[in-house]
Amino acid sequence: MPIESPAIHWLDDHLLLLDQRRLPAHTEWLDVRDAAGAADAIRQMAVRGAPAIGITAAYGLALEALRLGPGASAARLAPALDVLAASRPTAVNLFWALDRLRARFDGEPGAALGKRLVREAERIHQDDQAANQRLGELGAALLPPNASLYTHCNTGALATGGHGTALGIVRSAWRNGHLKMVFAGETRPWLQGARLTAWELMQENIPVTLVADSAAGLLMARGQVDAVVVGADRIAANGDTANKIGTYNLAVLARHHRLPFIVAAPDSTLDPAMENGAGIVIEERDPDEVRRFGGTAMAPDGCPVYNPAFDVTPAELITAIVTESGVIRSPDRQALADHFARRPS
Amino acid sequence: MPIESPAIHWLDDHLLLLDQRRLPAHTEWLDVRDAAGAADAIRQMAVRGAPAIGITAAYGLALEALRLGPGASAARLAPALDVLAASRPTAVNLFWALDRLRARFDGEPGAALGKRLVREAERIHQDDQAANQRLGELGAALLPPNASLYTHCNTGALATGGHGTALGIVRSAWRNGHLKMVFAGETRPWLQGARLTAWELMQENIPVTLVADSAAGLLMARGQVDAVVVGADRIAANGDTANKIGTYNLAVLARHHRLPFIVAAPDSTLDPAMENGAGIVIEERDPDEVRRFGGTAMAPDGCPVYNPAFDVTPAELITAIVTESGVIRSPDRQALADHFARRPS
Repeated sequence: MPIESPAIHWLDDHLLLLDQRRLPAHTEWLDVRDAAGAADAIRQMAVRGAPAIGITAAYGLALEALRLGPGASAARLAPALDVLAASRPTAVNLFWALDRLRARFDGEPGAALGKRLVREAERIHQDDQAANQRLGELGAALLPPNASLYTHCNTGALATGGHGTALGIVRSAWRNGHLKMVFAGETRPWLQGARLTAWELMQENIPVTLVADSAAGLLMARGQVDAVVVGADRIAANGDTANKIGTYNLAVLARHHRLPFIVAAPDSTLDPAMENGAGIVIEERDPDEVRRFGGTAMAPDGCPVYNPAFDVTPAELITAIVTESGVIRSPDRQALADHFARRPS
Repeated sequence: MPIESPAIHWLDDHLLLLDQRRLPAHTEWLDVRDAAGAADAIRQMAVRGAPAIGITAAYGLALEALRLGPGASAARLAPALDVLAASRPTAVNLFWALDRLRARFDGEPGAALGKRLVREAERIHQDDQAANQRLGELGAALLPPNASLYTHCNTGALATGGHGTALGIVRSAWRNGHLKMVFAGETRPWLQGARLTAWELMQENIPVTLVADSAAGLLMARGQVDAVVVGADRIAANGDTANKIGTYNLAVLARHHRLPFIVAAPDSTLDPAMENGAGIVIEERDPDEVRRFGGTAMAPDGCPVYNPAFDVTPAELITAIVTESGVIRSPDRQALADHFARRPS
């Protein structure tokens, strides 16, 4: 049976990815047949969102093993592993997923290896769907009734195996009748909030209001936001959280207005090997993402640009990190260590 | 002699306005012949920036008097006054400029009235140029040597009679050799930072780096910003300041990072009749400013949008307000009252 989520369709011998660069105007699918194709889709952001990147990389490596057929081996898969690992530096789910597949290298090579990798990739995909459902419920339980939420970027079904992380909380809250409104920051430069989050929520008639990222403070000052919910690309051992550029602004604003700031991510986003946020590599992207849009120049030619894709929110600004295996309140090194000790392995 | 500034050329019987909607790709001038034309240019943001709006409205009313010729009178100018006053609600300079012209209504009507209004509009224009030079110097003196500044929107020669307010400080600091870098927030939704500030600074080889508004926090956390300088559209009697949406976000971020937050504005932006920021009308603009980008739809059709053009920064987050007649440190009701008592009338 094919495994489907809104943006990732696995069809036994190839992968279809919803091209998120073309949304909301166009619904087009990319046909991915090997690791290079998967890496391109990740690098060019046809697929994005830390969990979806991990799932895509896993399928990419499995496809490469299928392509090698009887010749598949750990050694011959090494270049594909490198290409996939280099596709985006910040999302830890990418490395975590590749590690899960690498743990399957031992044993019979060739076609059997291909089958094992496909099975593991499918399991990662299904696990993520299930994790999002659980963390959505856990996160929704933290919210006041009739909550107005502010969210950033897209952390929904498009960014994950399904349901979503921060948007998983939104969806669960909506289903439980506890959601009044979601304010979606448009999320420059890539506009994931405008193009993807607004689109995804409107499809399900979940009440959404789109705002420029710079309107967040005014909304909070006016009492129109009860909590901020965001996703994560990597969470260090002390709770410091890398996420889409602008997340840190929101965390500072939430603290100033004494609002809960909730990070939602599957356990695969936790990186216990990373001591704190200072060590997280922040990807810088093409200046033209800021200078141009839809082919139109918005800034003078040659204008210098700083275009970091992520920022790091220190743990002390985070009210709670919600994963599928529990809620980490007031995250710090000890709270995260306790979470790891507690969760089912 | 024609009075010129980079965006406003007064040519004795008509006004040329640089159409700032078309920058940086195109340099086109609008020919304005009456009050309705001036009001349209303000409403549609062909001209923008609180001081420039005030100057344009003044010329618009003067043009209307010229058009009426021998028939010019206070009564016959009343509709033009109303149209101009309604063009944008937040910038107080608009009302201040119109009040200055209205004070010239007394006396001989007809052509003489037209001449008086032209002379007063010219004086407003020239006064603003001079005020910006002075406040630029006063503001630059507050900065550390080799300063990296963060600014928002466009407060430069394009937004004023010349030199600029916050960008006046930037220009003065540059000329004094005290400026290392200006980070310009792109300023969604209208992208004044990308389209106008970057363009204006690059024309003079002042070092500028363009960033998405959401990158401000990361820059501050990394120690790359020494102070934030912004303009103002209206400053209440207690120092609360209305300015371009996103200004308040920056003020909260500056406070969190213990950075100076400096508001630069001519005295005409001070509104002693407005007790505090709660009374300031916040203009809401067309949702399509957020939904569309350079003519391209970036959000789903019909997506609900909240598009406030301004926010209000409470005085307690402002380190200093700089006007042409002095620096108001730690602004509050008393400090502003002292400023009014001190300044030359």
